[in-house]
Amino acid sequence: MVVPGAALVALDWGTSSLRAWLLAADGAVLDRRRSDRGLLALTQDAAATPDDVAAAYETVFTQTCAEWLSTGPELPAIACGMVGSAHGWVDAGYRDAPTVLELAAADLVLVEHRSGRLHVVPGLRVPSADDRPGDVLRGEETQVLGVLDALGATADADLTVVLPGTHSKWVSVRERRVETFTTAMTGELYGLLLGDSILARTATEPVRDDEAFRRGVSAGSSPGSRGLQVELFGARALALDGTLAPSSVPDYVSGLLLGDEVGHLLPRRTGTGPLVVCGSDDLCRRYAAALAAHGVATQALTEDVTVRGLWRTAVGAGLVDACENEPSGRRSP
Amino acid sequence: MVVPGAALVALDWGTSSLRAWLLAADGAVLDRRRSDRGLLALTQDAAATPDDVAAAYETVFTQTCAEWLSTGPELPAIACGMVGSAHGWVDAGYRDAPTVLELAAADLVLVEHRSGRLHVVPGLRVPSADDRPGDVLRGEETQVLGVLDALGATADADLTVVLPGTHSKWVSVRERRVETFTTAMTGELYGLLLGDSILARTATEPVRDDEAFRRGVSAGSSPGSRGLQVELFGARALALDGTLAPSSVPDYVSGLLLGDEVGHLLPRRTGTGPLVVCGSDDLCRRYAAALAAHGVATQALTEDVTVRGLWRTAVGAGLVDACENEPSGRRSP
Repeated sequence: MVVPGAALVALDWGTSSLRAWLLAADGAVLDRRRSDRGLLALTQDAAATPDDVAAAYETVFTQTCAEWLSTGPELPAIACGMVGSAHGWVDAGYRDAPTVLELAAADLVLVEHRSGRLHVVPGLRVPSADDRPGDVLRGEETQVLGVLDALGATADADLTVVLPGTHSKWVSVRERRVETFTTAMTGELYGLLLGDSILARTATEPVRDDEAFRRGVSAGSSPGSRGLQVELFGARALALDGTLAPSSVPDYVSGLLLGDEVGHLLPRRTGTGPLVVCGSDDLCRRYAAALAAHGVATQALTEDVTVRGLWRTAVGAGLVDACENEPSGRRSP
Repeated sequence: MVVPGAALVALDWGTSSLRAWLLAADGAVLDRRRSDRGLLALTQDAAATPDDVAAAYETVFTQTCAEWLSTGPELPAIACGMVGSAHGWVDAGYRDAPTVLELAAADLVLVEHRSGRLHVVPGLRVPSADDRPGDVLRGEETQVLGVLDALGATADADLTVVLPGTHSKWVSVRERRVETFTTAMTGELYGLLLGDSILARTATEPVRDDEAFRRGVSAGSSPGSRGLQVELFGARALALDGTLAPSSVPDYVSGLLLGDEVGHLLPRRTGTGPLVVCGSDDLCRRYAAALAAHGVATQALTEDVTVRGLWRTAVGAGLVDACENEPSGRRSP
């Protein structure tokens, strides 16, 4: 399949899935694919050698993008996410924050394979210091660049970008540089607790309950919080006392976790610029409510910005000659 | 099997197992049994009726204690733990704290069955109030009574009893009454995180590392803690940075969780009496270290005190005529 105007293959290859886009030179999405062959699926065999793992990545890449690549071996390809981790196709390493978001070609790590070359985006790291744990992210650096692209000129100011998810990231951006960032295991803890804990046995099939969420936020972020490990068990006590419906336990626990995260990280925010939350509709709504409880307004960005970030990175690194004469007129990815 | 001097069948019937003892009138252990048929095993069938569940409990009880019960139908039996929960053999309810620990016969809930009667100890509850979650425990009320019995006269003072485990309990005791208590999900969170999270994929087979535990306690309980959800992810950053061995991640996470628990609950302790930790050797050692970081000395009680508490409850309720003329001379249970 030859797609006229195709200029870039862009991949967001994470822990559990691969999303792939075929982009035009102006960033417009011409075609897209999705696969559930993320890092976890590709590294299940503990006996696999690094060569086996690399071959498995290459097979998935070829299967997913073969039609596009037949357009010509010259079509550049770029990827972000766990594909660049120590258990990825290639270890693309980390760049240390503070750092710029726009990359040169030399910043990308190359994988040579049968169908050509793949440029992999490195992650970001806050180095550990003086027994103080640092932090890492991989894939979110590209999301943040996509956020700046989506925001346009307003992104020149300081801002805090919150990327909720399995591992929630709070990224401090100043003049288009990442100053620092912090990770909270919020989404993963929610999954663990509601999947297999005493709270899973307390809860029934969830029914949306915004008031239960609000109660959870309040209990999790109040100065009187007795700590997350205690307040979580409180959800069971409330349910046993009949003051919290078992079907509302999930929203209460979600509120506790978000309230605890916001209560700890909002006071540590650097800079005074706007706070942008970028994620699904549901998560943006929840974070906006948790932050509103602290009197903080947020700007929600519910669009998927990763493909924007991949395209912007490819343009910055010279992989694509961008057609950006009329940015407001181009079809957004 | 007729055992001379048998005076009581005592059961600690919890979530995952049943422990049973045959006791003499002075509390001495004459025989013991163990079964893995706890609440979870007996309530796996979602389609089971309450009568089915009761029949399953009765079968396990009979199989475990049949030899003892053949001594005569008059042998009294007492049980504590999840056997008295809503998914137990009988719902023994909760008594509200503050409350005494010694019970009258009328406080125990009776189960009539083919082989006689079983007296079930109710749990304890701090009722929820003003949107403030309360708390619950079941089985630990009997452990605390066993702690008081083991401590002897010193238990007449105020004291805080810490019972670490899946759900860690901090119980405030004043003049042999439970004033209040607080639960932290410390042990359960540890199991979830090291069983199936990004930290499980970061850790390798644990090697004991007291220094890693100490670092975790410090990070989890310091005033500069960025909250448990952030500090937990820090364990991964430390491991990726090479400043924490993957085999030491479990001890670091254990330290974080205990440090967070102690950091939140120690300042909320009521009373000024001694702090007693009752649990396994390993947990007592860990809690002593975490509390020592706050300058607090602890008294460790590594003995299993539940059987003492069951016997003491049975004596108090008049199920057994105790031979207590020489308490210091009797064989301890």
